[in-house]
Amino acid sequence: MHKRVKERAPAVEECLHQLNENKLQDCLKDLHPADIAEALPRVPLAQRVRVMRAAGPEKAALILYELDRDMIPPLLEALGPKRLAEVLNDMSDDDAADILGELPENQKDQLLNLMEDAEANDVRELLKYGKNTAGGIMTTEYVSLKEDITVARAIDHLRQVGSEVETIYYVYSINENAELTGVISLRELIMAPPDARLEQVVTRRVVSANVWDDQEKVARMVAKYDIIAIPVVNDHNQLLGIVTVDDVLDVLEEEATEDILKLANLDVGGQDLVETGPWQRAFRRLPWLVGLLFGGLIAGNVIKGFSGTLEQVTALAFFITAMAGGPGNAATQSLALVVRGLATGEVNQRRLLKTIFKEAQVGAIVGIVSGAVLALVAVLWQGNTSLGLVVGLALAINITISTMLGSFFPVIIQRLGADPAVASGPFISTLMDVTSMFVYFSLATWLLL
Amino acid sequence: MHKRVKERAPAVEECLHQLNENKLQDCLKDLHPADIAEALPRVPLAQRVRVMRAAGPEKAALILYELDRDMIPPLLEALGPKRLAEVLNDMSDDDAADILGELPENQKDQLLNLMEDAEANDVRELLKYGKNTAGGIMTTEYVSLKEDITVARAIDHLRQVGSEVETIYYVYSINENAELTGVISLRELIMAPPDARLEQVVTRRVVSANVWDDQEKVARMVAKYDIIAIPVVNDHNQLLGIVTVDDVLDVLEEEATEDILKLANLDVGGQDLVETGPWQRAFRRLPWLVGLLFGGLIAGNVIKGFSGTLEQVTALAFFITAMAGGPGNAATQSLALVVRGLATGEVNQRRLLKTIFKEAQVGAIVGIVSGAVLALVAVLWQGNTSLGLVVGLALAINITISTMLGSFFPVIIQRLGADPAVASGPFISTLMDVTSMFVYFSLATWLLL
Repeated sequence: MHKRVKERAPAVEECLHQLNENKLQDCLKDLHPADIAEALPRVPLAQRVRVMRAAGPEKAALILYELDRDMIPPLLEALGPKRLAEVLNDMSDDDAADILGELPENQKDQLLNLMEDAEANDVRELLKYGKNTAGGIMTTEYVSLKEDITVARAIDHLRQVGSEVETIYYVYSINENAELTGVISLRELIMAPPDARLEQVVTRRVVSANVWDDQEKVARMVAKYDIIAIPVVNDHNQLLGIVTVDDVLDVLEEEATEDILKLANLDVGGQDLVETGPWQRAFRRLPWLVGLLFGGLIAGNVIKGFSGTLEQVTALAFFITAMAGGPGNAATQSLALVVRGLATGEVNQRRLLKTIFKEAQVGAIVGIVSGAVLALVAVLWQGNTSLGLVVGLALAINITISTMLGSFFPVIIQRLGADPAVASGPFISTLMDVTSMFVYFSLATWLLL
Repeated sequence: MHKRVKERAPAVEECLHQLNENKLQDCLKDLHPADIAEALPRVPLAQRVRVMRAAGPEKAALILYELDRDMIPPLLEALGPKRLAEVLNDMSDDDAADILGELPENQKDQLLNLMEDAEANDVRELLKYGKNTAGGIMTTEYVSLKEDITVARAIDHLRQVGSEVETIYYVYSINENAELTGVISLRELIMAPPDARLEQVVTRRVVSANVWDDQEKVARMVAKYDIIAIPVVNDHNQLLGIVTVDDVLDVLEEEATEDILKLANLDVGGQDLVETGPWQRAFRRLPWLVGLLFGGLIAGNVIKGFSGTLEQVTALAFFITAMAGGPGNAATQSLALVVRGLATGEVNQRRLLKTIFKEAQVGAIVGIVSGAVLALVAVLWQGNTSLGLVVGLALAINITISTMLGSFFPVIIQRLGADPAVASGPFISTLMDVTSMFVYFSLATWLLL
């Protein structure tokens, strides 16, 4: 079975390149939409169109959703808006909103006008919410029932609507004001007495998200409570939709990618890792690189201020690279720990002070040991004890400071309402470049001259 | 509803501190195990024991699984092995294996001997597989049925076993050799004609994982195919267990955390972000820091080799920090992109050359622009055109090299079977420190003297 999955790859390629329409239709039936979407970028555009037509609207909808977003505009162009609107009709409303939300206004409106009214209205509703909110990732295709119906009737209802909703694994109970009153899983439902009423069997304590909640918060709730879907309500506790676990997986992946890239001073969306052009990529990186360069130059200006000292003790220059790099690396370590801890919730309000206090201790230990190592090397290498003292002491001080900065700066940034992953790195890096050189050359001037 | 979740926090605290046993039992009933586990570290050990006893074995099992792993040994000590074995009996076998797998051999064996035989044997079976394999995260509590039974009987069976299995949302069909032959979701099952036989309704193309597959690979399959559980088979396609989406969420979170920390030169497990002591933390970071320090020192030795040049043009020292930092930052950017791309599968075999080629272009653009900026600043700051040429040219060359290194080095590391996230950073960092200084001072010696 495992092997079968592996062996499927060539079959996918072969099928997608099939030019005979009947054969193409036939072989597509046997393929998973996710596999087709993965291989589709590797066939020419004209053939992509042929594949989408041959797949039929329902499967084409699943394929389309799995595609990289930047492949959609050309496909839209080639398929024609009418055909694409048909595909969007067959897509679940949250997925359709996801795709439409990334298209230019005029194309979006054109498609919405071509779509079936009911479907288009659902999608328009979802598009009102921000892309990164619970509302932006929820689907309105869920099952909700009044509490007075019986378990048997509820199951009958599921049988009827099963193919139209995103999940039938949870049934939500609502009152006459559409307020969420309870939840029951399909598992509990089929195990419950058929003639019991829903009100007797639903769970009253429902974990739910607010429609304006950030998508990451919603994702973490689903992960924490090990549920397959979470209901989304407005401020009046009225049920508006659900977020399912497959979307949660995407959100968590996306957020992790974003954090990794931001920590590497690179603020790009996860989607376009590979597909954007080199100029676009370069100009996304340059602001950070050039900004950091100026940090290095300010540090250079500090060195210039001490050029008298440097001219007398040229050996000081040999340690500049280690002295600039060490504190930066130490800050990165504690920064990554705290930023990730804040994201996953492992570093929370209650643990905050404890974490920072511990990082201060860690910084002192790491600083003293590194300083001692560098001092020893300096003495052995340059045969100069005072120089060893200077570099060792400077490194110890700088690493201690930078570790502490790395741990509490992201927390402050978060408190100020900004994103700790993106703002902390460059700031600390620049600050530490300057501080390190200042401490180093000040100590040198004081102890060596 | 949303508010209700928020307001629950103080209720949790209040309940957990309850000393009256009856009241404690009562209020625990209303709390979610995940909320209890989150708050439990904040009550004294003796009270934790009281909470676990009052919760009853079934709920205690859910709480225990959600706890940070380092809280378990003291709890084991305090609860006594017999009580803990009872709790483990009530836990799903994969979760129990997960917890037991992290205990010392003797404690593990003691608990396994105290557990019920059937349960203990399941857990022993799972412990055979590596912690990070499909076998290590799968549960053996799933539903499999022969193909000749009817849909109605299958649903009846689900009603009976529903409370014992991890998920009833998929039913797997097997043949007389226990080989996996098909799958049907509960959703399809309740919509199928009750008198149809399973063989008529199951899907034959089953996505499955091999028991020895890496957990990350399994997680990515579940994410890709948007399924709630994936069957796990051995090399003979015999069904051994399933991996459910809640475990997949944990795996993806864990892997993302690991990658983030490794990219920050910090190789620690995700679990112990907060709970380990400062000495332990410090000694995990020191090897990397000290290693990188030596990289900086080798670069310093290169500078020493050019001390004649430096003594004649002291201004060269003012650019060392920028010259050492820039290429490092550029390498980190492309490194993070490629390491994350490799992890999520966005950078795959077919896109590899394309990615590296594009990164080389990006590196050249980024290098030339950064170099031009630095050259301009150098001319304006130092009023020396030749010096401007040297620093600009050196930075352009170094950033181009480092961007390329950052993109293809992790790929090579992965090809060699090692972890690209952990090995790439320090190597590139050290190599670029040395290369940068060599290029910079060589150009200076050539063009300025």
